[in-house]
Amino acid sequence: MSCFGRRPWDPRGKHCYVTGGSSGLGLALSLLLVEQGADVSIVAFDEEGLIAARERLESVRQTRDQRFAEYNYDLTSAEAVQDALRAVMNDHDGRVPDATFLCAGGATPKFFVEMTKEDLTRGLEMSYWIQAWTAWAVSQEMIRTRKKGKICFVSSTLGYMSVVGYASYAPGKHALRGLADTLRSEFKLYGIDVQIFFPCTMYTPGYERENLTKPEITLKLEESDPGLTAMQAAHGMLNGIKSHKSHITGDWITEIFRASTQGSSPGHFFLKDWGLNVLGTLVLPLWRMYVDMTVTGHAHEHDAYLTERKLRD
Amino acid sequence: MSCFGRRPWDPRGKHCYVTGGSSGLGLALSLLLVEQGADVSIVAFDEEGLIAARERLESVRQTRDQRFAEYNYDLTSAEAVQDALRAVMNDHDGRVPDATFLCAGGATPKFFVEMTKEDLTRGLEMSYWIQAWTAWAVSQEMIRTRKKGKICFVSSTLGYMSVVGYASYAPGKHALRGLADTLRSEFKLYGIDVQIFFPCTMYTPGYERENLTKPEITLKLEESDPGLTAMQAAHGMLNGIKSHKSHITGDWITEIFRASTQGSSPGHFFLKDWGLNVLGTLVLPLWRMYVDMTVTGHAHEHDAYLTERKLRD
Repeated sequence: MSCFGRRPWDPRGKHCYVTGGSSGLGLALSLLLVEQGADVSIVAFDEEGLIAARERLESVRQTRDQRFAEYNYDLTSAEAVQDALRAVMNDHDGRVPDATFLCAGGATPKFFVEMTKEDLTRGLEMSYWIQAWTAWAVSQEMIRTRKKGKICFVSSTLGYMSVVGYASYAPGKHALRGLADTLRSEFKLYGIDVQIFFPCTMYTPGYERENLTKPEITLKLEESDPGLTAMQAAHGMLNGIKSHKSHITGDWITEIFRASTQGSSPGHFFLKDWGLNVLGTLVLPLWRMYVDMTVTGHAHEHDAYLTERKLRD
Repeated sequence: MSCFGRRPWDPRGKHCYVTGGSSGLGLALSLLLVEQGADVSIVAFDEEGLIAARERLESVRQTRDQRFAEYNYDLTSAEAVQDALRAVMNDHDGRVPDATFLCAGGATPKFFVEMTKEDLTRGLEMSYWIQAWTAWAVSQEMIRTRKKGKICFVSSTLGYMSVVGYASYAPGKHALRGLADTLRSEFKLYGIDVQIFFPCTMYTPGYERENLTKPEITLKLEESDPGLTAMQAAHGMLNGIKSHKSHITGDWITEIFRASTQGSSPGHFFLKDWGLNVLGTLVLPLWRMYVDMTVTGHAHEHDAYLTERKLRD
């Protein structure tokens, strides 16, 4: 999708559906959308958070006509996702939202050898299905009713690369890229725009939760990550959405990964992407070697850790 | 992982575990491994195919000592995968295989709007879980018993890119890349090599099956694909395995996608990768524009198709 020749997308008067809207990126994005004149429906599996979020949305209300609502659903099953969408549409005269922002999700990093069957399936639910089901339900309604609009996924820098600890998360975030790239192509049949945001580390409640299970070696590799607040990330996401970018990033490190893994996905500006790609080609292999050396250097300590937990003979 | 300074991997005397070994790529790879002196255990959910495959393995036997066996399991559930591995290990004095090749899988292309909940979950089972579960079960045993060895995933050109029709398949193949890149990093802790093969179109029984459901527009986009026989693909895969490549391809088009989406994944040879990346940067956007135009040009015909099926008002 070329960024040229299209007017910026304007949230004013649009009905925006934000999953994971009770906290973190979802809440930050919802606040921005409200400030810019949108009607916003948020959905999350967190009753208290939803009520508090609704109050914050009211606090930035721009006009009396803006409509906000919150919905309490666990979006990891196809059925609940359909129920949630039905409830949202019922409150809007049966109309499907104009734009859907898939901010729900989360990570539980661990060593692969320590992951149970449930860790792996739950990991893919939280990193992939929680967004894929909503995209599926919403797009069926959009296509049925000939609604043009947009769907925006939220992947991660870990949708472009991965390191130790993310075996239940990075696959889902890569899968979202695969789904978004497929649907970007397929939804040209319907005039529905598909976008995907790749945020880096965000200092959110979800990040604090994931650090509870994160292996020490993964924490060590991440200790120099700059990171963004949820609001900084939401600004980056909304800028990308407005300028019709297919792959959106919010920081320079992920920009380098984006340009270096672009393949046939649409880029931003040819010369900038080229420069970033050259930079990535030179720098990323060195970074990988540093990571590999750090991991290998941790092997002895890790052996003691596994032996203590009886995962090694 | 540098390709320099390591002796080529040699199948001779190794116990190789091949999922999907009853047909297509899995069978072709098994035949090559037998010809090169390996013990081979194949597993698939296809009793007749397994018996015929076992006979073909016997027909290329090199020594009297080589051990072949076939196992009939549906590898899409974690439990069945653990049962299959236990059966294989029981036949080998309780030892985990030296090398595992994850060739099981399949695609059922369709328009996203036509996919049911079952299509999507089954799609991810066949494109992702069928390999992820075996990698999980095998690596737990390898780590427990301090076995060094290798695990090789099988993604697809559609693990690097995607087009209309592959919403239940490309996400899983992208996810495998995410899993392989994670484990390549993590398994440096154990001396286990992780590799991943990205085959292009292969003329196999699975390809004939997927064409039965494939949308016309997807068939049209693929009509100029060169494609490989299963044996050609298996040769490419085994060459990459022997030379310790992390990302393996079997054809030049996928090579361009590999180099153009490399990011921090290990490459092959710096100058060749650089050249392919430059080529991809120039050519892939043009190819994408051609695909997008073809898809957009199909919108009218597709509208009639959906209206007839009552998927559009």
